[in-house]
Amino acid sequence: MGSTKLILVLFCLLLIISSSSAARKKKIQARKPCKRVVFYFHDIIYNGKNTKNATSAIVSAPAWGNMTVNVFTPSHFGDVVVFDDPITLDNNLHSTPIGCAQGFYLYDKKETFTAWLGFSFVFNSTAHKSSLNFAGADPLMNKTRDISVIGGTGDFFMARGIATLRTDAFEGEVYFRLCVDIKLSKCW
Amino acid sequence: MGSTKLILVLFCLLLIISSSSAARKKKIQARKPCKRVVFYFHDIIYNGKNTKNATSAIVSAPAWGNMTVNVFTPSHFGDVVVFDDPITLDNNLHSTPIGCAQGFYLYDKKETFTAWLGFSFVFNSTAHKSSLNFAGADPLMNKTRDISVIGGTGDFFMARGIATLRTDAFEGEVYFRLCVDIKLSKCW
Amino acid sequence: MGSTKLILVLFCLLLIISSSSAARKKKIQARKPCKRVVFYFHDIIYNGKNTKNATSAIVSAPAWGNMTVNVFTPSHFGDVVVFDDPITLDNNLHSTPIGCAQGFYLYDKKETFTAWLGFSFVFNSTAHKSSLNFAGADPLMNKTRDISVIGGTGDFFMARGIATLRTDAFEGEVYFRLCVDIKLSKCW
Repeated sequence: MGSTKLILVLFCLLLIISSSSAARKKKIQARKPCKRVVFYFHDIIYNGKNTKNATSAIVSAPAWGNMTVNVFTPSHFGDVVVFDDPITLDNNLHSTPIGCAQGFYLYDKKETFTAWLGFSFVFNSTAHKSSLNFAGADPLMNKTRDISVIGGTGDFFMARGIATLRTDAFEGEVYFRLCVDIKLSKCW
Repeated sequence: MGSTKLILVLFCLLLIISSSSAARKKKIQARKPCKRVVFYFHDIIYNGKNTKNATSAIVSAPAWGNMTVNVFTPSHFGDVVVFDDPITLDNNLHSTPIGCAQGFYLYDKKETFTAWLGFSFVFNSTAHKSSLNFAGADPLMNKTRDISVIGGTGDFFMARGIATLRTDAFEGEVYFRLCVDIKLSKCW
Repeated sequence: MGSTKLILVLFCLLLIISSSSAARKKKIQARKPCKRVVFYFHDIIYNGKNTKNATSAIVSAPAWGNMTVNVFTPSHFGDVVVFDDPITLDNNLHSTPIGCAQGFYLYDKKETFTAWLGFSFVFNSTAHKSSLNFAGADPLMNKTRDISVIGGTGDFFMARGIATLRTDAFEGEVYFRLCVDIKLSKCW
């Protein structure tokens, strides 16, 4: 009889402990991504000659300047760039793209190169459409920079998290390759 | 005596089952919106003659091109459009607007029409101010496109979810009517 | 004996009550911020003469107009401004900045001054990098305006919430000082 009651008490205690430990576990795991993917994207800026290959173009520049000579040079302050860059799984520009990085960035510092990004990863798929949406500051001269995943659609419905950008390679001011390490903290 | 203990055991079991089933239920309902609203918004692009009626205007174009002739025509790559479009409950441009869709879109593909959107729905209200904020890729040629609800204020405090866009009508390159089916997955 | 069982029953009841009251409490506290910070940022618009002091510049204007004379004046409809504004803890432009507000705003109404904002607060820190990302409509003529916190990095990992903007001071069309009251509803 006494042992039965003891079991009941232990049982209830266990219940409390398990639920509170679950809460603790949840807190600890909060920063651990539930999904992690790495992509590369390739930005070829239009320079007036590469209309066919270019994947991006400057579309705005500060007033009183003009589109080719930036009054705030050399950091491109105020220039807005629209892009449609291929996304690949490795660092090879000629690999079959799995989608496009589409959106814009703007240079926003006079003293050095920093940018602000608003863009989407739109994935190729005949079955259904998936996308990830990003926004955030990109201090280009830092080795790695974190921006926010502000949403997603399809497979990435309601996604949230962080994307770590790293400039993987660049050639002059025409070609940039970015490595994007996406860590989603909210998956469905 | 034995039955009382049995009741206690059953009681505790019930407690566990109910809490775990609640968790399961939560998971299942995760994709079911807690609020769903459908709106229309009307975009009349400035063509140099309709200053009075226009609700939007091209404000940027790629460098080395100019504002009227796009070097990447016909898909408008790089053009940035700022808009302030009336929102209506039905598909009639002349219905009393319940608010404004304010923000921008930019055309971001050379081969076809696709856009990237960043905008807010700002609702009319004398009592208090409510808004919904959106961002995402809009591949215009698809029948429906999903973008993210990235936040909200007032009645839509902390809103998150998906908005499905559908081009309801268009007249040349001057008038566009979009149907927006908003499915909020997070409500307060 | 009977009292032991009674204790068990009460114990279980307590468990249920505490968990349900926790849920209720959670709901009530949902709108109560877990972190609240107030900052000021200072916007000095480039007017063609203040290259050294300017922290922002108009980079786009509607087509068929030009960068200096806005065809939709006086509300600046369609003008896009890129900024890199110092953030201070008090309302003094000359206080040591704790970071930068970087991004853009665009004027989006013909009849009055309203803007749409997309920007980040990037905080100075030698230890690690933190940022907060914002987006939303800013009806400038209202005393206070709410925009969304759409994400964060570093110390503000996964941040969400509301920022209330208030125009603290302005001098002509050159200097604006904004007070930003940030209320984060999701902290980690």
